[in-house]
Amino acid sequence: MTECKDEHILNSIDYPEDLRKLSPDKLGEVCAELRQYIIDVLSENPGHLGASLGTVELTVALHYVFNTPYDRIVWDVGHQAYGHKILTGRREAFHTLRKFKGISGFPNPQESTYDAFVAGHASNSISAAMGMSVASALKGEKDRHVIAVIGDGAMTGGLAFEGLNNASANPNNLLIILNDNDMAIDHAVGGLSQYLVDITTSQTYNKMRYDVYRGLRKMKLINNDRRGNILRFNNSLKALLTQQHNLFEGFSIRYFGPIDGHDVDYMIKVLNDIKDMEGPKLLHIKTKKGKGFKPAEKSATEWHAPGLFNKETGERIIVHKLNEPQLYQDVFGHTLVELAEQDERIVGITPAMPTGCSMTYMMKAFPKRAFDVGIAEGHSVTFSAGLAKEGMIPFCNVYSSFMQRAYDMVIHDVALQNLHMVICLDRAGLVGEDGATHHGVFDLAYLRPVPNLVISSPLNELDLRNLMYTGYKESDGPFVIRYPRGKGEMADWRNKMHVLPIGKGKKLRDGDDIAILSLGPIGNEVIKAIKEVEGDGISIAHYDMIYLKPMDEELLHEVGKRFSRIITVENGVIRGGFGSAVLEFMADNGYTPQVKRIGVPDEFVEHGSIPELYKLCGMDSKSIAGEIKKMVIGG
Amino acid sequence: MTECKDEHILNSIDYPEDLRKLSPDKLGEVCAELRQYIIDVLSENPGHLGASLGTVELTVALHYVFNTPYDRIVWDVGHQAYGHKILTGRREAFHTLRKFKGISGFPNPQESTYDAFVAGHASNSISAAMGMSVASALKGEKDRHVIAVIGDGAMTGGLAFEGLNNASANPNNLLIILNDNDMAIDHAVGGLSQYLVDITTSQTYNKMRYDVYRGLRKMKLINNDRRGNILRFNNSLKALLTQQHNLFEGFSIRYFGPIDGHDVDYMIKVLNDIKDMEGPKLLHIKTKKGKGFKPAEKSATEWHAPGLFNKETGERIIVHKLNEPQLYQDVFGHTLVELAEQDERIVGITPAMPTGCSMTYMMKAFPKRAFDVGIAEGHSVTFSAGLAKEGMIPFCNVYSSFMQRAYDMVIHDVALQNLHMVICLDRAGLVGEDGATHHGVFDLAYLRPVPNLVISSPLNELDLRNLMYTGYKESDGPFVIRYPRGKGEMADWRNKMHVLPIGKGKKLRDGDDIAILSLGPIGNEVIKAIKEVEGDGISIAHYDMIYLKPMDEELLHEVGKRFSRIITVENGVIRGGFGSAVLEFMADNGYTPQVKRIGVPDEFVEHGSIPELYKLCGMDSKSIAGEIKKMVIGG
Repeated sequence: MTECKDEHILNSIDYPEDLRKLSPDKLGEVCAELRQYIIDVLSENPGHLGASLGTVELTVALHYVFNTPYDRIVWDVGHQAYGHKILTGRREAFHTLRKFKGISGFPNPQESTYDAFVAGHASNSISAAMGMSVASALKGEKDRHVIAVIGDGAMTGGLAFEGLNNASANPNNLLIILNDNDMAIDHAVGGLSQYLVDITTSQTYNKMRYDVYRGLRKMKLINNDRRGNILRFNNSLKALLTQQHNLFEGFSIRYFGPIDGHDVDYMIKVLNDIKDMEGPKLLHIKTKKGKGFKPAEKSATEWHAPGLFNKETGERIIVHKLNEPQLYQDVFGHTLVELAEQDERIVGITPAMPTGCSMTYMMKAFPKRAFDVGIAEGHSVTFSAGLAKEGMIPFCNVYSSFMQRAYDMVIHDVALQNLHMVICLDRAGLVGEDGATHHGVFDLAYLRPVPNLVISSPLNELDLRNLMYTGYKESDGPFVIRYPRGKGEMADWRNKMHVLPIGKGKKLRDGDDIAILSLGPIGNEVIKAIKEVEGDGISIAHYDMIYLKPMDEELLHEVGKRFSRIITVENGVIRGGFGSAVLEFMADNGYTPQVKRIGVPDEFVEHGSIPELYKLCGMDSKSIAGEIKKMVIGG
Repeated sequence: MTECKDEHILNSIDYPEDLRKLSPDKLGEVCAELRQYIIDVLSENPGHLGASLGTVELTVALHYVFNTPYDRIVWDVGHQAYGHKILTGRREAFHTLRKFKGISGFPNPQESTYDAFVAGHASNSISAAMGMSVASALKGEKDRHVIAVIGDGAMTGGLAFEGLNNASANPNNLLIILNDNDMAIDHAVGGLSQYLVDITTSQTYNKMRYDVYRGLRKMKLINNDRRGNILRFNNSLKALLTQQHNLFEGFSIRYFGPIDGHDVDYMIKVLNDIKDMEGPKLLHIKTKKGKGFKPAEKSATEWHAPGLFNKETGERIIVHKLNEPQLYQDVFGHTLVELAEQDERIVGITPAMPTGCSMTYMMKAFPKRAFDVGIAEGHSVTFSAGLAKEGMIPFCNVYSSFMQRAYDMVIHDVALQNLHMVICLDRAGLVGEDGATHHGVFDLAYLRPVPNLVISSPLNELDLRNLMYTGYKESDGPFVIRYPRGKGEMADWRNKMHVLPIGKGKKLRDGDDIAILSLGPIGNEVIKAIKEVEGDGISIAHYDMIYLKPMDEELLHEVGKRFSRIITVENGVIRGGFGSAVLEFMADNGYTPQVKRIGVPDEFVEHGSIPELYKLCGMDSKSIAGEIKKMVIGG
């Protein structure tokens, strides 16, 4: 375990009030120690390194200038907020980050009053902070500041734009800090990022604006009253310089910047200057991902979440075992290239996760046929639908929990038109250390009611490939494949692909006492469970359904006729998902078996390792074995 | 039925190719006739009048300049597209608009190849058109134009911004037409609308830009090649005039306008000029909703969808009957004001539907506590969550089918933090004439799996009020109320509100042969059905469950113990919804009754009147009565 040494100033900071007692000349030291502490702890306890190193100075400046937690800091995407956690009562607990029963990897209001709002999915900070700011105004708490800290990546999400467009619509004191590191997770995308570069090059103008503002304020020619009757800063200055306003001022938001986000003193000066200015404002800061740790500065994508590393040599510690299964993600990535080689209609689309989902292989092999659209899940689906409408065959890869952002687009733009495309839901099911915001557990339940969708999940890598092939070759409508984060089951997965007939499951083993129906890789836990109870003389049939929709009705009739005891197993919420589909079939067809559904219970599941969470939810092989025994033998 | 007279030029236009044969001087006449035809038909067959009158000239210009259907026009929100329907093979069928088995109120690719993409939910056009444009580029169809026509209201949606941000990212020839009428459905909201006004006032500059462009092109100083080596128009002109680029050019999209959207000749000239320019471009046109029909010009909101009207006098024909039930919407609107009078923490939020959902009463009574955030469903929910986090009690009212856009925000920003707010799902269930894109039939299924939500639906207006009161007074987490479009059951609904205990249903009548469980106003069809079979000697129990989640377990145990036959009735998809919840309870508790689920089948339901659609889906009282008899008597 990493500890702060006693002589370290960081050790005296339990809460921001301790920080605020320090004289300004100590803050550089605080930043240096905070940065080193993050590096020390993360080298032994994997987490998101790059983003949090980039926001060290910003974090110190914010807590120094603002009266947290009375003032609210809303972090957009929690990866930036490790320094914030350390300065707000969680220094000692920081090594438990992302561990079962440890502190969360994201701001979490249940964990600390300093975490003003939940921050797992990108782009929500402006809307949330604006709500908080308007509430303060309505309650007459005029002295409360609300600050949204949003990265340039998150700024491309539609929700951020909706917030921006509304920010000036109501009286509120929102301060938006645009943390601009030219980079979402992989790289910058779209017109906005180019725009930010352009802004930076016109820095002189903005610097001048700020200086003029300071001068006018000193001369008391302007005041901070929004409806101030001496001089309206914005309009007057605009007139003065006869410049058109910029994008943000197009939304009636006062813009300042860009300034150096690693100059803690200057940031404090600027924040103090602008904080009491009424009305919405945006401060644009430039930072570097991985700042202060050379290897991470050089390769931001690789060091986004590097795993274990040697903090002295800067080497990542990657444990390779011979013949170890590869990631499902790599199977997806390589298979997509194989298919794309066969058919030039195939294109790949990802919303900002080319590395995470391994779309990178496709981008390399067919750069013109692979599209990273930035953090914009809705657009990724509707853009894919447009491609499909003109005869392309898009493979649109979206993390399951982020697909919640594109639910309407799946219904309205894809399913309604019955367009032929393959929707790949990566990170489906429990995802482990990222926790409640990231578990992809709702997809089966929210997609099943949508007409025209085919919904599938593979037992293993071979079937992931077969399903991708089937979705391409056999389907003529929308075809969904959900598969989990992480390693698969087999070292050798390069099979010759074949079609898995749509709506057909597989009997993996026969038996008489009980039928177990599973969907997806969680079926491997069932296989283990069956081995565990083999000695108990229970005769078990196991069916891998492969398709949630349409379900294999022939198979289900067989099950309904032969068995009075059924267990369903799925890696998703048990309300409305696969188990419910089995119940519906049985009810619709007059079968009345006992059915036990195993899946994620009706609560938000915390973070932890996959085995810990499977156990927690009763989805591990031991729990499944227990249910089998309980049902067949009783008690 | 309204007919075109033979001498009318419109009668000679069956398809756009007929239009394109006309000489330009005839187009004014075509516009006049087209406008009159829309007025004539809609006066007798209700539809969306205002938007389509505003786009008459644009429609004629587009089909005159572009080679439709080879060139693709993607309309954003179909209300604009009536003229398009009339000019593309549907003149004769136009009077069947929005009627059962008639033509759809929205562009519908299944109806016509001229309808390039589905257009029921706002803001999808840029993303879809961009996909289509990129597909054309990949397929080598360089001569194909793709045009997205989007209103200024739809432009505030996050999806439109995501599309805009990506428009320049890939080679494509997208032309975006911004149809700017200062108005979404009710009125303009947010920074963008102010920005558009600002642009208009700087028209001289833009006019000059266009003139200079034309001049340079004539002089062959620029060409249309995107990578043209003579002169890059954009940058050079910018340098020439030393102006900063505007918002759209901030996204690397060439901007032209604003121009008069009612000057068909000038629009044709401009469209011809810019259509072959490579790369994404935006043409900003100014139009007037209701153009050419005085009453509609004066009051755009009232004439958005006016119902029947007298086309001579301009009077709307509103049939008022004594003691007729009011709209559920008005009950919501008045009740919200009553509650807001009692508690100043109560605020109201609507994404662009203040008139539709009757938030207007709240806006009038408490203007500072009512928020129209524009077409931005995601923001409406996250903004509400921010308000709730700071102790306000938001009533966030979103149409059920539009809430699909905010699904992730409900999960991630509301439910995960268990925030106390009331989510009102207006237009839940089948909505009638707006059809497949607008039916609010998925909500029960997609919200039920979300932890922490309370989900309810009232049998009638009294219970809508009681549920609003319960959500405010009794709940301490997110509380969902779904209720339908249109008239309720009772003339006098101003009861003294009381709490409906959370998770408690009501036995409406007792019986022995069969139990019917219903949720929401569809229970009134059950009441009628029971009357219809009363003579057959069947003894029927009827339970109004009120709450989908948590369900009344005591009541369900009673049902499970006493009945071997159960019918569930809901106005929503039967997969995963209320009926499935009943199945889950029965399975979890070892009951094995026969269960028949009645609800919306697993397909997209077309448009028609509510009674027609109820019948189609087997949800009308007659069909329910038939199921009762079948289950009890058999066959």
